[in-house]
Amino acid sequence: MKGGGFYNKHSGWQQAVQDSMFEHVIKSAQTCALPLPGSGKCWRIMDLGCSQGRNSMAPISAVLKEVRSRAPGLPGTVLHADLPDNDFSTLFHVLAGEGSYTRTFEDVYPAAIGRSYYNRLVPSAELHMLLAFVTLHWLPQAPDWGATAWNQWHPAVTTEALAECRQQAAKDLLGFLEHRAVECVSGAKLILSMVATDSAGDAGSSVPALVDDVLEQLVSEGLVSRSSVSQVSIPIYCRREQDLQAVLDLPQVRADFSVEAVQLNFVRHPVELQYEAGEVSWETVVDAIVGGVIAIWEPSLLAPFRDAEQRQLVKQELPRRLRSAMILRPGEFGFSWHHLFTVLTRL
Amino acid sequence: MKGGGFYNKHSGWQQAVQDSMFEHVIKSAQTCALPLPGSGKCWRIMDLGCSQGRNSMAPISAVLKEVRSRAPGLPGTVLHADLPDNDFSTLFHVLAGEGSYTRTFEDVYPAAIGRSYYNRLVPSAELHMLLAFVTLHWLPQAPDWGATAWNQWHPAVTTEALAECRQQAAKDLLGFLEHRAVECVSGAKLILSMVATDSAGDAGSSVPALVDDVLEQLVSEGLVSRSSVSQVSIPIYCRREQDLQAVLDLPQVRADFSVEAVQLNFVRHPVELQYEAGEVSWETVVDAIVGGVIAIWEPSLLAPFRDAEQRQLVKQELPRRLRSAMILRPGEFGFSWHHLFTVLTRL
Repeated sequence: MKGGGFYNKHSGWQQAVQDSMFEHVIKSAQTCALPLPGSGKCWRIMDLGCSQGRNSMAPISAVLKEVRSRAPGLPGTVLHADLPDNDFSTLFHVLAGEGSYTRTFEDVYPAAIGRSYYNRLVPSAELHMLLAFVTLHWLPQAPDWGATAWNQWHPAVTTEALAECRQQAAKDLLGFLEHRAVECVSGAKLILSMVATDSAGDAGSSVPALVDDVLEQLVSEGLVSRSSVSQVSIPIYCRREQDLQAVLDLPQVRADFSVEAVQLNFVRHPVELQYEAGEVSWETVVDAIVGGVIAIWEPSLLAPFRDAEQRQLVKQELPRRLRSAMILRPGEFGFSWHHLFTVLTRL
Repeated sequence: MKGGGFYNKHSGWQQAVQDSMFEHVIKSAQTCALPLPGSGKCWRIMDLGCSQGRNSMAPISAVLKEVRSRAPGLPGTVLHADLPDNDFSTLFHVLAGEGSYTRTFEDVYPAAIGRSYYNRLVPSAELHMLLAFVTLHWLPQAPDWGATAWNQWHPAVTTEALAECRQQAAKDLLGFLEHRAVECVSGAKLILSMVATDSAGDAGSSVPALVDDVLEQLVSEGLVSRSSVSQVSIPIYCRREQDLQAVLDLPQVRADFSVEAVQLNFVRHPVELQYEAGEVSWETVVDAIVGGVIAIWEPSLLAPFRDAEQRQLVKQELPRRLRSAMILRPGEFGFSWHHLFTVLTRL
């Protein structure tokens, strides 16, 4: 994720996704385990893939409201986790800021963990609820998409590379669930969400193809080398519903969790709906799309360009060229995606 | 603190200070409360003013070793706290790195808190041990040192300003102890340490006066304005032993804590001892002193210079001129300070 608060400003889609999960979030907060009265324990929730925190404030506030109506005055902790290079300073400023749950709820204490959630993060039997919003499509390592492909929808991806990537993503998710099983108390609720594809594996958005075009332009104009572009690799796999279901059906997962819900939605980016309703200009849509691409993918796209000048060139040219390609073709592009989530109960 | 890992590289004195507290750290780990067997609770330690973490690894490893020998296999959490703008990414990389206690001890889980410790940080009765190393001389707000003074040793400080600052520092420490009293279980051990002065209020180091000289040079050469320099104010008060003792003697503090130790040391910077033994050159000492000044004070010294060019000028000139002033006068300058600590037990 891009730092300096940038991600917070360009995550409108991620907010829209939360609406599709909202009733499940509330129901989970109404039914999750609570610490036994007199045990002296706190109620603890973990927020995985927290990024800079803006999108965590509303759901965690909603959850705290439900939990506090069940157990007034129960102290709580909120553990926000993301990778070590996450922008934790922005997170802590958001946590102290106006929209934070810390302003509404007394006796709730946030902390942060800077470690991949593909590792153990907290002591065993510590968590009563766990949110992993719009994050489980990120894999611990970038798959080998083949010589020139850099994502699962790239025309150069082979069937074999894709099959191997699916298998790796299944293993990664299984490992994730094994860690979480140890960390959660019996009766804990987990809401796990990820960007997805439809059952054919199609993305909702044509933007990755447009990024391809721009990278191709930069190569053909001699501005960057083919070999650098070939090294681009984004550590994301957007699962199909059947990919998720296959993991949830594994006997070791069934032994730890009951599956309360699996839901796939095609979630429109709010700015596209506003455009269709004539409320905003096409330019606004283009800005939102380019902002989204840069916020999510810039670090991965820039990674192979280690030379400072080359890096700066790609950093400038990519958004500029994406913008000029889209601006002339109103209504043709979108940054809407399939979204998949599951609700689990720790047995 | 200066970010980007800089503080970690320039905190040799802070490491030397730990030696003066070492036996107390071990004894506290041997006698602190542990969670009751069968309570399902973890052993929890908080590390206040953690900065980028390097200096926390050794003492926390030493503490974990003692606790694990008392209660083998007891899971633990370590909460590292510092201000929101602390360099948490470096902290999390240090926590995952070679010298980290996470490499030596299983089932120990670090997290971070980005909030001033003059606020509540964790739920009540949560902590079994608390370290606040070389940090309690930092106040929540810069005192009003008067029109031109920017620290307690400045020739322009009035007796009244200094008295007011002492009073404010006492109030701040009392507030700090009140928060910690709620957070600690009965039997928790707290080791609280700070840069100090001798009973006359003298600093150990002549470096602040040299910084004065450089700032004065910059004004007289017309490079920066007098009014900007007058706005410099460092939020530090280095207490005398009697300042600390007066707070510890307050009835509300005595009701919460017993005082196990109060100790004042003059701690020499290791590089100065190496120089005196003929092991390093004077240039090495100068580099260490300038590095220390910049690591600790640069953010406060630069704060009034909001204009980018002015800021850059001071950022360059201050270390350069400090270095040239010192390099010609071998053995005349040092970055050694008085250090004061107390060991408390929560009643």
